[in-house]
Amino acid sequence: MAIITVVGAGVMGTALTFPATDNGQTVRLVGTHLDRHIIESIRADGTHPKLERQIPDTVTAYFHDEVGKAIAGADVILIGVNSQGVGWVTEAIAPHLEPGQIIHMVTKGLESLDGESISILPDVLRANLPEHVRDRVHYSAIGGPSIAGELAARRPTSVVFVSREEEIVERLREMFLTDYYTIFTSTDMIGVELCVALKNPYAFAVGLAQGVLEAAEAHQPDEAGAGMYNYAAAIFAQGLAETAYLVGMMGGGMETVFSLPGAGDLYVTTQGGRNSRFGRLIGMGLSYSDAVEEMPGETVEGVDAIIAIGPAINTMIEQGKIDANALPLLRRLYTLLTKHEEVGFDFDRFFSQLPFNPPLYKQSE
Amino acid sequence: MAIITVVGAGVMGTALTFPATDNGQTVRLVGTHLDRHIIESIRADGTHPKLERQIPDTVTAYFHDEVGKAIAGADVILIGVNSQGVGWVTEAIAPHLEPGQIIHMVTKGLESLDGESISILPDVLRANLPEHVRDRVHYSAIGGPSIAGELAARRPTSVVFVSREEEIVERLREMFLTDYYTIFTSTDMIGVELCVALKNPYAFAVGLAQGVLEAAEAHQPDEAGAGMYNYAAAIFAQGLAETAYLVGMMGGGMETVFSLPGAGDLYVTTQGGRNSRFGRLIGMGLSYSDAVEEMPGETVEGVDAIIAIGPAINTMIEQGKIDANALPLLRRLYTLLTKHEEVGFDFDRFFSQLPFNPPLYKQSE
Repeated sequence: MAIITVVGAGVMGTALTFPATDNGQTVRLVGTHLDRHIIESIRADGTHPKLERQIPDTVTAYFHDEVGKAIAGADVILIGVNSQGVGWVTEAIAPHLEPGQIIHMVTKGLESLDGESISILPDVLRANLPEHVRDRVHYSAIGGPSIAGELAARRPTSVVFVSREEEIVERLREMFLTDYYTIFTSTDMIGVELCVALKNPYAFAVGLAQGVLEAAEAHQPDEAGAGMYNYAAAIFAQGLAETAYLVGMMGGGMETVFSLPGAGDLYVTTQGGRNSRFGRLIGMGLSYSDAVEEMPGETVEGVDAIIAIGPAINTMIEQGKIDANALPLLRRLYTLLTKHEEVGFDFDRFFSQLPFNPPLYKQSE
Repeated sequence: MAIITVVGAGVMGTALTFPATDNGQTVRLVGTHLDRHIIESIRADGTHPKLERQIPDTVTAYFHDEVGKAIAGADVILIGVNSQGVGWVTEAIAPHLEPGQIIHMVTKGLESLDGESISILPDVLRANLPEHVRDRVHYSAIGGPSIAGELAARRPTSVVFVSREEEIVERLREMFLTDYYTIFTSTDMIGVELCVALKNPYAFAVGLAQGVLEAAEAHQPDEAGAGMYNYAAAIFAQGLAETAYLVGMMGGGMETVFSLPGAGDLYVTTQGGRNSRFGRLIGMGLSYSDAVEEMPGETVEGVDAIIAIGPAINTMIEQGKIDANALPLLRRLYTLLTKHEEVGFDFDRFFSQLPFNPPLYKQSE
C-alpha cells in the first residue's frame, strides 16, 4: 500500500482520490489557501462542494498549512492545483520533499522561462525547486481525456501516465489502475505535456468558431436548418496540426498527438470543457469580462497558456526556429486575447485568409 | 471556365455544385437510378428534396440514362454516389470516358480486392475500368470535414483535395475555391482515402460509446449529474490511433492523420454525422434492424467499410503484416456487427480488456 498525497483539492485532484483509494492506497488530500471551504466541507460531512458528492471516506483532508505533515512519508505527491497555482505549490512542497518521492502532475499549462523557448510544467516546477532537492525526486504527469466529474462518478476513463523514467510510470500505474480507470504509459514527457496544455487554447478556439456561427445563425437562420460543425471541425484539425508541429519541433512523438493525450484530450475538452464554453461565449459576441462573469469561479487555463507562450513563439519565429506560417491559429488567438479584438466576421474567414497550405510537421523533416 | 459533371445527386454530390457554380464553372448533375425523384424535383422547381433548398440555377440536371451526354466534353467527373454505388458508377461512366478527364471522388469507402489487402476507392474504381481507359484519365479525391447541408448553406468549410499528381489537384483547387470553401492540397492519396473511409466506422464507435453510457445513465442517473464524455473521447483517440497505424502501414503520412482528413473529418462525423447517430442507437440497446428503421433512407457507410475490410484485416494479421494488438477497436466492431452481439457492458469495459499499451504506429518503425 502506497501513500499518495494530493496537493490541491479542486475537482481534478479530488477526483483522482477515487481510483487511488479504490486501488487500496492511503490517500491524503491537501487544500490550497483557496480551498479552505472545501477542506472544511470534507471534514464536516465528507462532501466536496464542487464535485457535489461524497469523497471516499478513507481520504484524510488537510488544510494548506498542514502540507508538511501531509507530505511526510508519502510515495507520491500528486500536484492537482490549476496552472496559476504552480508557483505556490512549488514553494509549499519544497521544504518538505524527501528523496525518492514522485511528483506526479495533473496540472496543465506551459510557460516560458527565458522568453525565447517553451517549457512544460514539470520542468518549470523542477527548475524552481532548490538545487539540492530537484534531482532527488522523480517527475511524472497525467494526460488524456478526463473530465473530473466523470472520473469521480467512476465512469470509464482512459489516460496516459508519463515520465522520462519508465519504471516510475509502471509503479504509478499499479497504484491507480482500476476497472474504470485505464492507464497507458509513455516516456514522451514533452509530447504529452505539450498536448495536454495546448488542448485548452485549441478547445477555446473550437468553442469560438461554434459561437461565431451560432451568433450568425441567430441573426439569419438557414432556410434548411443546416448545422455548423464543418468550421469547428476545421479549427479542431488545425489545432491538432499545430500541436503536432510544436511537439515535433520540441522532440516529442507524433504517436502522442494522434492518441489519448492529443486527439482524445482535445476532443473531450471541446465536448464538456470550460475552455470551449468560454470560447463559445466570446465567439457569440460577449466581451471578455462579460464572458468571465458568465462562468463564476472557473479558471480558463487555455487563455493563460496562450498569453504565457505567445511572446516566446513570436521570438522563436524571429529567430527562425519556428516557421512563420506554421502556427496561424495560436498566433491569431494571442492577438485576439491581448488586443481585445472583436471576433466576428474576421474569425469566420480564418481559413480563407491563411497562406495556401500552411506547413504541416513531417517526421522526415 | 471548366465543365464539371457530378455523378450522383445525393446531398454531398449536389452540395459540391454550390462552390463549383459560385466559382464560375459549368456544372452538370447526373442522378443515379435511385435519384429519379431528385432529378424530377430539380427539373420542376430547382429544389433538392433532401437538401431542402434550391440548387444553383445554372446547374443542368440529367437522369441516369443520360450519363453519356453529361460526361461528353467534361473536364471533371465528380463521383458523388455513396460507397454502395461505386460498382454502378464505374460501369456507367466507363464507355463514355475521354482521355484527360479527371475522376474526382467524394465517395468514401474501402474494399479488399483480393481478400488479403485493403484498397482505397479510387484504386478500386481504376482497377474496374477497362484497360484501355484506366491510364488515360486522372484520379483525385476529397477529404476533410464537410457536412453536405452546411456546404450547401455556404457555411465555412475546409477540405483537402488529393491526387498522386500534384498538377491535377492544383487545377481542381482553382475550379472549386470560394471564400467559404477553403481547399488545401495533398499528394498523400493513401493517407487521405484511408482517413476519410475509416472515420465512418470510428465515428460509429464513438456513437456506440455515447449510447452505452446514456443507456446506463437512464437506468441509474449519477447523483452529481456527471456527463459521459471521457469514454467517447477515449474511443475517438483509439480510432485516430488505429487510423494512424493503418495509414503508416500502407505508406501514408502522419500529417494526413492529425489534420483535416483524419482528425477533422472524424470530429465532424461524431458531431453531426449519421454513423455516430446510428452507433448511438445501437449502443442504447436497439437491435440492428430497429436502428435501421429509426434512420429511414440513410446509408451507414461505416458499417459497410468494417464488413468490407474485416476479413482482410484478419488475414493480414495471420500473415504477420499487421500486429494482432494494433487494431483492437476495428476488430471489436467487426465482431459486433457480423455476430450481432449485444453491446452493453462488454463494450463499456473495452479499454480495461485491452492488452496493456496497445502498439501505436511510430514513423521510425
